[in-house]
Amino acid sequence: MTEMPYRNALIIGAGSGISGSLTRLLRDAGLPVVIAARNIDKLKPLVDETGAIALTVDAADPAQVERLLAETEARIGAPEIVVYNASGRVRGPIAELDPAEVGKALGVTALGAFYAVQAAAKRMTPAGKGAILLTGATAGIKGFALSAPFAMGKFALRGLAQSAARELAPKGIHVAHIVVDGGVRAEHRPDPVDKPDSTLDPDAIAQTYLDLLRQHRSAWSWEIEVRPWVETF
Amino acid sequence: MTEMPYRNALIIGAGSGISGSLTRLLRDAGLPVVIAARNIDKLKPLVDETGAIALTVDAADPAQVERLLAETEARIGAPEIVVYNASGRVRGPIAELDPAEVGKALGVTALGAFYAVQAAAKRMTPAGKGAILLTGATAGIKGFALSAPFAMGKFALRGLAQSAARELAPKGIHVAHIVVDGGVRAEHRPDPVDKPDSTLDPDAIAQTYLDLLRQHRSAWSWEIEVRPWVETF
Amino acid sequence: MTEMPYRNALIIGAGSGISGSLTRLLRDAGLPVVIAARNIDKLKPLVDETGAIALTVDAADPAQVERLLAETEARIGAPEIVVYNASGRVRGPIAELDPAEVGKALGVTALGAFYAVQAAAKRMTPAGKGAILLTGATAGIKGFALSAPFAMGKFALRGLAQSAARELAPKGIHVAHIVVDGGVRAEHRPDPVDKPDSTLDPDAIAQTYLDLLRQHRSAWSWEIEVRPWVETF
Amino acid sequence: MTEMPYRNALIIGAGSGISGSLTRLLRDAGLPVVIAARNIDKLKPLVDETGAIALTVDAADPAQVERLLAETEARIGAPEIVVYNASGRVRGPIAELDPAEVGKALGVTALGAFYAVQAAAKRMTPAGKGAILLTGATAGIKGFALSAPFAMGKFALRGLAQSAARELAPKGIHVAHIVVDGGVRAEHRPDPVDKPDSTLDPDAIAQTYLDLLRQHRSAWSWEIEVRPWVETF
Repeated sequence: MTEMPYRNALIIGAGSGISGSLTRLLRDAGLPVVIAARNIDKLKPLVDETGAIALTVDAADPAQVERLLAETEARIGAPEIVVYNASGRVRGPIAELDPAEVGKALGVTALGAFYAVQAAAKRMTPAGKGAILLTGATAGIKGFALSAPFAMGKFALRGLAQSAARELAPKGIHVAHIVVDGGVRAEHRPDPVDKPDSTLDPDAIAQTYLDLLRQHRSAWSWEIEVRPWVETF
Repeated sequence: MTEMPYRNALIIGAGSGISGSLTRLLRDAGLPVVIAARNIDKLKPLVDETGAIALTVDAADPAQVERLLAETEARIGAPEIVVYNASGRVRGPIAELDPAEVGKALGVTALGAFYAVQAAAKRMTPAGKGAILLTGATAGIKGFALSAPFAMGKFALRGLAQSAARELAPKGIHVAHIVVDGGVRAEHRPDPVDKPDSTLDPDAIAQTYLDLLRQHRSAWSWEIEVRPWVETF
Repeated sequence: MTEMPYRNALIIGAGSGISGSLTRLLRDAGLPVVIAARNIDKLKPLVDETGAIALTVDAADPAQVERLLAETEARIGAPEIVVYNASGRVRGPIAELDPAEVGKALGVTALGAFYAVQAAAKRMTPAGKGAILLTGATAGIKGFALSAPFAMGKFALRGLAQSAARELAPKGIHVAHIVVDGGVRAEHRPDPVDKPDSTLDPDAIAQTYLDLLRQHRSAWSWEIEVRPWVETF
Repeated sequence: MTEMPYRNALIIGAGSGISGSLTRLLRDAGLPVVIAARNIDKLKPLVDETGAIALTVDAADPAQVERLLAETEARIGAPEIVVYNASGRVRGPIAELDPAEVGKALGVTALGAFYAVQAAAKRMTPAGKGAILLTGATAGIKGFALSAPFAMGKFALRGLAQSAARELAPKGIHVAHIVVDGGVRAEHRPDPVDKPDSTLDPDAIAQTYLDLLRQHRSAWSWEIEVRPWVETF
């Protein structure tokens, strides 16, 4: 089993699902973790459980993202792992969508990720080391009908991930894009009794994030998909 | 040879390259054409040559795009062909880019295309007929290093195109994404003498746009790449 | 309208659908056409209608393919257009398929295409000119359940097309892969009355082949998909 | 850390690189391993080191593959992990390749994998459990010039992997395709001193295989790429 090569982590867009599980796994591996979200009240149980530090951020605001990274650095050191997990979504027929809402959604899903990658790259490049994980979705591979804004955001995120991987990998920074294909299990959304594991267990997803973080630089992955065994694709 | 099934056209992001050639081909096919750009002074020679109507638009502003479509409708009828050809680009190491410039680039390349698709869909859906052509680039398929914002914009454009094709095709609207892979020939950028046709001739690209417009609805393409014979890919 | 830059054509895997329509369009453009199939009895109506020359070939046999090209050369000159349209297909659960049948299917769908590309390349390379069109399917992009052999064959065909395009384009040979996504209309399979044009009209597909053949070398496409307006994808 | 859910393993196409490392990791995890190759003399050091059982197989012969699975079953129980690692390759200009060699290469790279998947599926389906890992290459994603047969084989392998994943995942069988992008380190091919880890360390690749095997069925990956940090792509 390879060792975890990083010493701390920042998760942007934290909630109770993937990011909650990931926070637990990282703490179990001994890393201090900062979790950031627009509204950190909802993060209180996770903070109480794991000792993670919760910070407020509007990920679509570049100044706030830069401040978040600076604050993270002050609290746990320059971040060596940055996970971007935030996204915005509006659905409906193209003709009926509110243009302003579409812009906001793209801001959170794609521009916010850029700001995070930028702020992370500034700190990781001098160290010659770091990992940036971007949470994608099937919508980043396939543009579904009635969901154009989410397709735009997640496609853009994938383009960012690929471009950043090409630029930053030779500087020692591992950039990876995780395509989460399917619904993530939650208390309010348990699996049907006759279809066990038909939704993605957030602990299982987080384990794959951890596997990526432990990869040796001679064999890095820039993209991986995860989906339930019974999911059609 | 199949007939051109549309009666007029609007080209957003018009200049002297692809859009100039396309304007000529559409006029030759007998269609009135509106060409729109931020600065229409540069369009004067094209207007003089083809009789196209030039209108001003900042494609990143949804209100201006909606106004452009309304004005187009008033001048040549509800647009049956809408071509989106505008894009914004900033290059450089991720750490050095200006976040505001990145947001602007994404606004022109991706959000502007959404506004155009939306305004077009509103008018084409009632008619049950229309074509929307989106000018893409290799950056929408492959995210190159040192060009993250352009990758984000063109990936987003491709996601929009795919989602819009899935939603609008069954309503009779042909959405297609054209991946232009390589430099487009221009007066200031002629082909090297020993490498004829090593850049994309804008007339040749425009011919492929015309081929797409003439496709029968039983065999529509949603995506096509064009590149010079000697281009590596 | 650009001119047809080639003087004759060979279609391998000819039948009544795409290849029949293409034979008619090429004859209308004034080109002599050889059509080849395992069983040429079924081609008699097409021969009577178009004056095409029918030759027998088992496309999975490299010696027969080479002989076909030589015979074609003797009859209408070295072929400048070669279309490969043959495929083999077996369906069913992986565990129940006959391995020998799988091998045969791959032989027709993929190896036969290689033999055709090879024989064509030998003749086109000295001329510095030619076009090779390979008829693909959605199965070459997406591997469906219960259809592993067809996925293998059509993926392989796409790999061949891409590799051949990269090798042969700079030698003046246009290689293109056409992804036919959906059922092709046939006498025994008309469209449902309430869903007009819900299958691919072979004439419409053939028109796209013709568009590819007329492309200028400064803007060649190596791949294009065609599907009915109402097809889900 | 999740447990290894499988009890034994068969590796087809075994040598000293990836399969050697994987054999060691699986033995360390306590699994009996059968390693199979055309020539098992070269496997002697690995057998001596790990206690793996070496069996002879020509992977391109379906009867031999079926016999191999039966023999494996007799020796270590019905295989719960099957890794297909064999491939055949011929390089050169399309016009100069020997058609018979191309057929052979496709037989080893693609048909052999089908035979292995089939024989594995027959045994895993009744158990409702198993993992099939297929070793791919960049050539399965991108068809390079002068390497058409390898592109055909690896594309076909990817099509098989995707189709098999769709069919077999809902039966409890995890099918995954690993895209190895770059040269694998070997004694005769060490990294340049000034570019450490510029080739893929086979131990690092094997670790990713192990990560896939340990994935929970609620979040399976069907594909992952691995490449050195300094590899261009």
